[in-house]
Amino acid sequence: MQNLYVSNRGKEVEPSPIRKLVPFADEAKRKGIKVYHINIGQPDIPTPPFILDAMRNFSNPVLPYGPSQGILELREAIANYFGRYEIDIHPDEIFITSGGSEAIFFTFLTIMDEGDEVLIPEPYYTNYNGFANMAGVNISAIPTSAEDGFHLPEKEVIEKLITKRTKAILICSPNNPTGVIYTKEEYEMVKEIAEKYNLYIVSDEVYREFIFNGESPYSVLKLDTNPERLIVIDSISKRFSACGARIGFIATKNKNILQNVLKYGQARLCPPTVEQFGAIEGYRRLDEFLPSMIKEYKNRRDAAFSVIEKHEDIFALKPQGAFYAVLKLPLKDADHFAKWMLSDFSLDGKTVMVAPAKPFYKSPHKGKDEIRIAYVLESHLMKEAIEILIEGIKEYKNKGFS
Amino acid sequence: MQNLYVSNRGKEVEPSPIRKLVPFADEAKRKGIKVYHINIGQPDIPTPPFILDAMRNFSNPVLPYGPSQGILELREAIANYFGRYEIDIHPDEIFITSGGSEAIFFTFLTIMDEGDEVLIPEPYYTNYNGFANMAGVNISAIPTSAEDGFHLPEKEVIEKLITKRTKAILICSPNNPTGVIYTKEEYEMVKEIAEKYNLYIVSDEVYREFIFNGESPYSVLKLDTNPERLIVIDSISKRFSACGARIGFIATKNKNILQNVLKYGQARLCPPTVEQFGAIEGYRRLDEFLPSMIKEYKNRRDAAFSVIEKHEDIFALKPQGAFYAVLKLPLKDADHFAKWMLSDFSLDGKTVMVAPAKPFYKSPHKGKDEIRIAYVLESHLMKEAIEILIEGIKEYKNKGFS
Repeated sequence: MQNLYVSNRGKEVEPSPIRKLVPFADEAKRKGIKVYHINIGQPDIPTPPFILDAMRNFSNPVLPYGPSQGILELREAIANYFGRYEIDIHPDEIFITSGGSEAIFFTFLTIMDEGDEVLIPEPYYTNYNGFANMAGVNISAIPTSAEDGFHLPEKEVIEKLITKRTKAILICSPNNPTGVIYTKEEYEMVKEIAEKYNLYIVSDEVYREFIFNGESPYSVLKLDTNPERLIVIDSISKRFSACGARIGFIATKNKNILQNVLKYGQARLCPPTVEQFGAIEGYRRLDEFLPSMIKEYKNRRDAAFSVIEKHEDIFALKPQGAFYAVLKLPLKDADHFAKWMLSDFSLDGKTVMVAPAKPFYKSPHKGKDEIRIAYVLESHLMKEAIEILIEGIKEYKNKGFS
Repeated sequence: MQNLYVSNRGKEVEPSPIRKLVPFADEAKRKGIKVYHINIGQPDIPTPPFILDAMRNFSNPVLPYGPSQGILELREAIANYFGRYEIDIHPDEIFITSGGSEAIFFTFLTIMDEGDEVLIPEPYYTNYNGFANMAGVNISAIPTSAEDGFHLPEKEVIEKLITKRTKAILICSPNNPTGVIYTKEEYEMVKEIAEKYNLYIVSDEVYREFIFNGESPYSVLKLDTNPERLIVIDSISKRFSACGARIGFIATKNKNILQNVLKYGQARLCPPTVEQFGAIEGYRRLDEFLPSMIKEYKNRRDAAFSVIEKHEDIFALKPQGAFYAVLKLPLKDADHFAKWMLSDFSLDGKTVMVAPAKPFYKSPHKGKDEIRIAYVLESHLMKEAIEILIEGIKEYKNKGFS
């Protein structure tokens, strides 16, 4: 029997590194071991009940296609929401997508052709690779390091990476996976580079309010540059603790991009209808839940770092935002260690599942000794999880692993 | 100020031809004219209330990411559903997508590389063009015609279109936009061609049960060929009258394709969570609503054709499935006529919005005198809409348009 063709791009796209260890976790659970999951960004914080209620109150007898660009009322609610940050954006400059995922993909499709390049500081959200594969574009990694708290390198380091095919710089602050928040100076530098080489600034701002150092939420839409250069990617997944809603958006003043995104949007008809009504309510009543949610994440980070900071052989500067941190461990192969934690280790019948950080890097030899953790457990559990992690590291070394 | 780069593919993707006339319809409505919309496949039939209730009953305090391949219970319900057609498919061979849209796109990504080709009988669902653009692949149109009721041409006509880059034949039966249902002989011919040239058969079966000639619903999964060749695209949008749910699926026994689709699925995380619970209920209670829904569409088709068949200058063989028909009109420019109907015509304060059929053709000179209608109005309104359409044609000709 002749083999059927399987696309090269399909073979090349990477499986989710975060889900790869799941069978090992399942096996540990079968053995009766309790597994603390700090490997994924799946919040446990309840979705505000009025958001779920607004979805339940959908009373149209038909569940119809909505507008391809999203329901006007939601786009108005989002435009209003930006008003609180003194950002003037019109509902027509907002395009609702099926999650932040689709917002990234449509942006890639409209600002780049096949073979074009986008600069992204590494480590970065691994799913960018999937969308780059779908769109046939290449990611050039801007190097950052744990030692610098994952802040951006000197301007010259970034400029050296720019080629004729480079069309954009994509930044994410507060950052997944590092938790870094860029300074105003870093934003200015990105702006200067973008202006000099006429690049887009694509800004993934899904963690906009997840800030623990008292600073105000920021958006690239506030940068003083040609507004057509600025494209914001956003999502309600984390902000409303509603990952399964699949509601995100693109915000930009660039009419060419909006027009072409609309055409792609028409091809896929519309984002989910009912969830948009939930999102409207969420944006209207943001103050009723967001401050306490941020405080909860801050407490969790503090709980985790109260343990981490006592152990000099784990290196991490305390991150100021999002709900992740990348930790540098005193061992050579964090991938092997993460598996070992699930298959060979437990402390009082418990263990911890972490995400090896290597897949978050584009450069082949980076991040091998690093893991990403997510603060998705309550503070006392978070603390316990880190304590188990540290005992795991000790035993791993005692077993002779380097 | 330097212009920012806008991708060529973004410029090339076509806007939705169905939505293009909307401003003219809006203007007619502003003038107080009632517009019958038979231009879009947006059903007016209520979504079965228990489907909406199942969504409302989602009681998890967090609205979380679901599995990338979709919730197991839904995949089981779909596997069971195929059992009624004596099709043996395992829940692991079903991949839930955000609408049939994403199912088409992921299929294109995994069976073709950039520059590869897929054969599709024209006229075809225009959104295939959007997904071909996103995936960087080309559509070769298999010619069919109103005179033949849009059935497939001779084998040789199809074979001549095959090149080294051809990877698949995509068929849709019952068909949007023509309503044609392929005969068993046509399926056999498609199978023979696919075997001879080692092509995939991608089958868009979203209208599977929308059959008005008493025949049983069919699926390519019943074809006696290498099962790895067969990929079914499906969706609950029409079957459950729930277009805004954005739940579709891929069904295939091809493990390579499933594995690569899963990787793309992981990049976009998951389809909407709550709607999957609605879909589970819909598949379980299909018999409570589907037969009456099909009967209703049959009545509407009959109402429309009771008028159409009295007018010899409109040519259309009565279609046997889906809820569309392509009508050949006695005029040269159906696009101009459709606009004129909205901007210059009314009968007793009413007019009709139809979709010009030209955009459903890939070949540049075909379909100019054709329109697509959708039976999305109750029978008496459908009949009235066709009567208004016919009066419109008369007046259009009387005004001197050819």
